[in-house]
Amino acid sequence: MRAITISAPGGPEALTVTEVPRPAPGSDQLLVRVHACGVNRADLLQRMGRYPAPPGAPQNIPGLEFAGAVEVVGRPDLGWEVGERVMGIVAGGGYAEFVVIPAAQALRVPERVSLEEAAAVPEAFVTAHDALVHRASLRAGERVLVHAVGSGVGLALLQLAKVAGATVAGSSRTTQKLERAEALGLDRAILVEGPFTPPDDLCDWADVIGDLVGGRYLPGNLMAAAPRGRIVVIGLTGGRTSEIDLGRLLVKRVTLVGTVLRTRSSEEKSALAQSFAATVLPLFDQRKVSPVLDRVFPASAASEAHRYMEENRNFGAIVLSWQAG
Amino acid sequence: MRAITISAPGGPEALTVTEVPRPAPGSDQLLVRVHACGVNRADLLQRMGRYPAPPGAPQNIPGLEFAGAVEVVGRPDLGWEVGERVMGIVAGGGYAEFVVIPAAQALRVPERVSLEEAAAVPEAFVTAHDALVHRASLRAGERVLVHAVGSGVGLALLQLAKVAGATVAGSSRTTQKLERAEALGLDRAILVEGPFTPPDDLCDWADVIGDLVGGRYLPGNLMAAAPRGRIVVIGLTGGRTSEIDLGRLLVKRVTLVGTVLRTRSSEEKSALAQSFAATVLPLFDQRKVSPVLDRVFPASAASEAHRYMEENRNFGAIVLSWQAG
Repeated sequence: MRAITISAPGGPEALTVTEVPRPAPGSDQLLVRVHACGVNRADLLQRMGRYPAPPGAPQNIPGLEFAGAVEVVGRPDLGWEVGERVMGIVAGGGYAEFVVIPAAQALRVPERVSLEEAAAVPEAFVTAHDALVHRASLRAGERVLVHAVGSGVGLALLQLAKVAGATVAGSSRTTQKLERAEALGLDRAILVEGPFTPPDDLCDWADVIGDLVGGRYLPGNLMAAAPRGRIVVIGLTGGRTSEIDLGRLLVKRVTLVGTVLRTRSSEEKSALAQSFAATVLPLFDQRKVSPVLDRVFPASAASEAHRYMEENRNFGAIVLSWQAG
Repeated sequence: MRAITISAPGGPEALTVTEVPRPAPGSDQLLVRVHACGVNRADLLQRMGRYPAPPGAPQNIPGLEFAGAVEVVGRPDLGWEVGERVMGIVAGGGYAEFVVIPAAQALRVPERVSLEEAAAVPEAFVTAHDALVHRASLRAGERVLVHAVGSGVGLALLQLAKVAGATVAGSSRTTQKLERAEALGLDRAILVEGPFTPPDDLCDWADVIGDLVGGRYLPGNLMAAAPRGRIVVIGLTGGRTSEIDLGRLLVKRVTLVGTVLRTRSSEEKSALAQSFAATVLPLFDQRKVSPVLDRVFPASAASEAHRYMEENRNFGAIVLSWQAG
């Protein structure tokens, strides 16, 4: 099969289409013919050699999510049929024509969602669901602040928070992204230049903060957090270290929690997939949430897709398609 | 009545015995004749002008906990009798011959506990109970690391964690304190000089960390935390700011939570008192936990008691007694 591989750690040009062996499904797994795969910031880090794949995952094929059709079912009783539309999260190897995934972690593609759109659903929406429900215990009526609200995860956080009955403020460095997020329900737009500092009326405001930026945003997040606020750090595009004012953490009784999907056990990943399938997947067909797709690149143009993400030009998701172009 | 008041922000000599008006209980409150009151680090900060009392609490009388006898009951149906032994936490004003407390926040003194010992129970044990149960969701079989294990809260964390079925490691800067903590069940003693760095075999070890030191200890805490570990920051004797490695927080999915009792609403304080009365108070009469009293000073020697705590000489609690000396 063909796969996009990292020839050597480096820039976008390090990605090349290569012929590699097709993976074989275990008895509890599905083999999936991939239609399209999502591009995530972690893929960029992995390409640069700064985010090695965990043991057991292909080391030189990036890609954390995919959508396609079931090609082979490991055992007849797994609850899946050959040909069914399927999407999911893998620890690596998503940029390939075929992937294997434990059946318990595979997600059915909602009827109204195309396979290109579906390729961008799992990472963004599973991460956002886990952050809001399991990490932050979001309750109806609470106030949520989402940083990088124009990113794939940011837009998923926005939509799921709105469905949950929250008021949502969101930050971005781009006015156009904020305007588009407002069309998706954003209640309060915050244009950020440099480090984040909350406007006066958003100090002590946020019950929940979904932060994809990390580093430079932490001091501002501690100012924006309401008493008993929960700050969920999901990404570190703004750096991995920061100064922290523990006094503020104490007095406001703030919870700061880090989350990442990739290091979890297989059991945890399966439980999360089940929780997601039961509570979030139906929202797509009910038109309460939608994947936001910025652009589809042919798989052969993976280098170009990485460059495009590095330039921070996308609103929503970027996917690679084996069928396009 | 007499009270220990702060004549002007400053050193221990700023504390003097003064005649002040006796407080009057509201209809849902008790008036308590104080036998003894606990000395806490927050009192030292308040004396120096660095930890103002919240609105509604006496500004110039320190003291966060007391034990004594009910003198007046605000209403007959509050569930308390005149003369009953009572202890509790107040937002200030504990260093006085009389205090008022909402009946819903008052705690009965266990039979086996003297009033001197009881004066040191509420802050240490309520804080430790709240940290382990409500903030950290401690489960049987987990591993707990307690910093400043020889302090009042540290010894309460140690004892309550042991009762909950945890394995407990504890740090102190003093060998003798560690030896005495071992006699109370400490499984692993860590002598700390300078900033805390966990021994190799305690890296990725602690499911729960109870930290009374803050600042300088945070980097080491993030190393000691196990995947999904919960770090509860209860005190800041080691400073209020630190560098934080958010990358480590993410990969290990660590929760860092700040906690303080004083800023809570009356409803929260009452709920916590009820939870404490139901689950922890019986443990004293069952001899499963004990208050650890280092020294009783007469109330008139409050300055000396503060100096003694500042010199970090105590193992366990320091109390002031209106009956002693």
